[in-house]
Amino acid sequence: MKIYDVPTAKETILKRERLEAAETPQSVLDGIEQRLGARMTPEEAVRHIIAEVRARGDEALHDFNKRIDGVEIEALEVNIADIERAYEAVPESLLRNMELAIERIEAFHRKQPAISWLDSSEQGVLGQLVRPIERVGVYVPGGTAPLFSSLLMSVIPARVAGVPQIIVCSPPPIHPTILVAADLAGVGRVFRVGGAQAIAALANGTASIPKVDKVVGAGGLFVTLAKRMVYGAVGIDGLPGPTETMLIADASANPVYVAADLLAQAEHDVLASAILLTPSAALAQTVQAEVERQRARLSRQSILAQSLAERSGIVLTKDLDEAFDLANEYAPEHLCLLLDEPFNYLGKVRHAGGVFLGEGSFEVLGDYVAGPSHIMPTEGTARFASPLSVLDFVKLINVIGLNAPHLYRPAAHLAQAEKLDAHASAALARMKD
Amino acid sequence: MKIYDVPTAKETILKRERLEAAETPQSVLDGIEQRLGARMTPEEAVRHIIAEVRARGDEALHDFNKRIDGVEIEALEVNIADIERAYEAVPESLLRNMELAIERIEAFHRKQPAISWLDSSEQGVLGQLVRPIERVGVYVPGGTAPLFSSLLMSVIPARVAGVPQIIVCSPPPIHPTILVAADLAGVGRVFRVGGAQAIAALANGTASIPKVDKVVGAGGLFVTLAKRMVYGAVGIDGLPGPTETMLIADASANPVYVAADLLAQAEHDVLASAILLTPSAALAQTVQAEVERQRARLSRQSILAQSLAERSGIVLTKDLDEAFDLANEYAPEHLCLLLDEPFNYLGKVRHAGGVFLGEGSFEVLGDYVAGPSHIMPTEGTARFASPLSVLDFVKLINVIGLNAPHLYRPAAHLAQAEKLDAHASAALARMKD
Repeated sequence: MKIYDVPTAKETILKRERLEAAETPQSVLDGIEQRLGARMTPEEAVRHIIAEVRARGDEALHDFNKRIDGVEIEALEVNIADIERAYEAVPESLLRNMELAIERIEAFHRKQPAISWLDSSEQGVLGQLVRPIERVGVYVPGGTAPLFSSLLMSVIPARVAGVPQIIVCSPPPIHPTILVAADLAGVGRVFRVGGAQAIAALANGTASIPKVDKVVGAGGLFVTLAKRMVYGAVGIDGLPGPTETMLIADASANPVYVAADLLAQAEHDVLASAILLTPSAALAQTVQAEVERQRARLSRQSILAQSLAERSGIVLTKDLDEAFDLANEYAPEHLCLLLDEPFNYLGKVRHAGGVFLGEGSFEVLGDYVAGPSHIMPTEGTARFASPLSVLDFVKLINVIGLNAPHLYRPAAHLAQAEKLDAHASAALARMKD
Repeated sequence: MKIYDVPTAKETILKRERLEAAETPQSVLDGIEQRLGARMTPEEAVRHIIAEVRARGDEALHDFNKRIDGVEIEALEVNIADIERAYEAVPESLLRNMELAIERIEAFHRKQPAISWLDSSEQGVLGQLVRPIERVGVYVPGGTAPLFSSLLMSVIPARVAGVPQIIVCSPPPIHPTILVAADLAGVGRVFRVGGAQAIAALANGTASIPKVDKVVGAGGLFVTLAKRMVYGAVGIDGLPGPTETMLIADASANPVYVAADLLAQAEHDVLASAILLTPSAALAQTVQAEVERQRARLSRQSILAQSLAERSGIVLTKDLDEAFDLANEYAPEHLCLLLDEPFNYLGKVRHAGGVFLGEGSFEVLGDYVAGPSHIMPTEGTARFASPLSVLDFVKLINVIGLNAPHLYRPAAHLAQAEKLDAHASAALARMKD
């Protein structure tokens, strides 16, 4: 892990390129050709997949499962026997910890304010109803590590919001821990399908998979491209990119914890990014050594090698103010303050998905059991986007119940100024009686 | 305006095709070729425009102003002298009514709950900070009617949310009422540029126009396509389509008001849709006659002719329950209840942008002076999306400030089950000390 000065860091690790905008690696293009039988860009491939799912429904899903995931399945939908078998594969202690996580995620989101309000006066009633979205599709990626925690972090806020129908799609074979997490979290139906084809199925519906109102959850490039294309026909939660963490630490920080937190972030993914900002040159050097020492004992070596070398680093800042300036500019998904008296710095945080205060409140706690959803805005979208929460699973309905004849003439006048005379007439008609 | 039975209505006026998905009319393709000098689909044209604005900045904006809007401007940015001249062109009475509108929109949004919360216990602190977005771009379309009301309906909620920098783009020449509305509403800077090129400028920034964090506001097909493409690099408020209203009326409704409300909606746009659902055959017929009678006196005849014939109609339902079922399925932007005791029916509304209760609380009031933003979800997106509100101009930051060592072991255990051993190590490291 390299140590950078600020100008160099700005030109390298603090500069992000959106995954969609990056040049497509040859291996991805080859993979598309091999699986779909034609030379296509990822965007063309996703367009093709969506069109096929629209035209051929379940048949296309079985097809893509075979060609893309290399799995031939009998039934798209997971049944009760599958869930029962999954429970047998999950140790009792893991079940109990999942339940602890569920309990804490639920408790946190129950505290989030998301309530209807009506304000009444002699002029009538105005307000906003908060209503749950009716049908939500949650995408859960497959891959090397079965991320049941991401399922919990999307499903529980939806359930707290009151969403009556929650549907999960995940590429086959689905790991037993995912099935158990889905069942414990209260998911209604689970389907064995992944990638762009899962997003297409949720957005359009097939004979087996019901059309949903909103699709949430992270995936790779193909899932992201598909979400962009179906947006509008259904809602989406965002277009998440690779995960990232930024730590701000001062000389008081324990370098063992700092290094461990950086490594925890870096092991996610070759594109993951773990950045330490510190004004302490001494800390920078100890952490650098400590990262080397700790990483030797870890298992995901090739991922760590790549993410630490290419996307991560230690940045030496002039002072803590400069560190906070850089952090606000970067708008990280996770911002961890390993500072003496971290609460004193909360007011400096303008853009971040989540802020973790102090060494006892580290990102891994937030990944599993702290309570807030760990699905947070990446790639600087924290400038405008929020972590997943109850608000993502409700919508507002404006309520206008006025009895205010004194507003009719102003409304008519404003309509006339917009040259909308039928608008004006609708107001004036009411003044004649 | 035709009267439909339910099955026919479902196959015609209640069936929506997304504007982006519709086949491009020849006239649009010809327009693109004429203005941009090449045969392109709208999507290709927008991609080209965005690339040009990225590459050539302000120069491209001047170019597109000339080629697309046919206007040669000296300065992209509106200056104080321009604003002063605009005030001279706006009558005092209109100013006063704009101020009334601003006051009411502001009062409504100040009541909307959007506040930070922190919950503390012996285990520490958890909560969510609500922070304003820093820079918002508001797109205001040009066209035949200068819709200053849409500017107010987006700018005021942003200002109430605390957004410090609000920037408006609108195609030249900008009508004086738009400039005055922008000034009264507290907009910081106004730029003379429209269409996809305005969205591209706001999303990427140019020498003159600062890059914003989020773009809001409705436009035509090109603006919508551009918003879809820039989404992710910046936030967007949605992909609004043609405006639509649905009225549910019973025999008690005044047919004069019902007809006036339908016509007010239909005059917006040839794609606008105004639909009455009623179980009363008598009302259906009187309204049909009344629409014919009233429309003769109105000015936007060719728009009315097309929207009334193609996108609007009266649907005879079995009873009010069937009307509400249809409305919830359609999820209209506006839902107006011209019913005896309309409040009794509020509980039946599951999906709508706004619900208007009773004959005294009609859509035109909501368009200008009721208070809630009139920018509401169209094309059935009310199933998952909300009207524009303070929530569109803030984002949440999760706060995790725990002191809860009893959670370290469960977190480590869950991490191990996900095969993330550096995650587990970050938790276990803290247990050694």
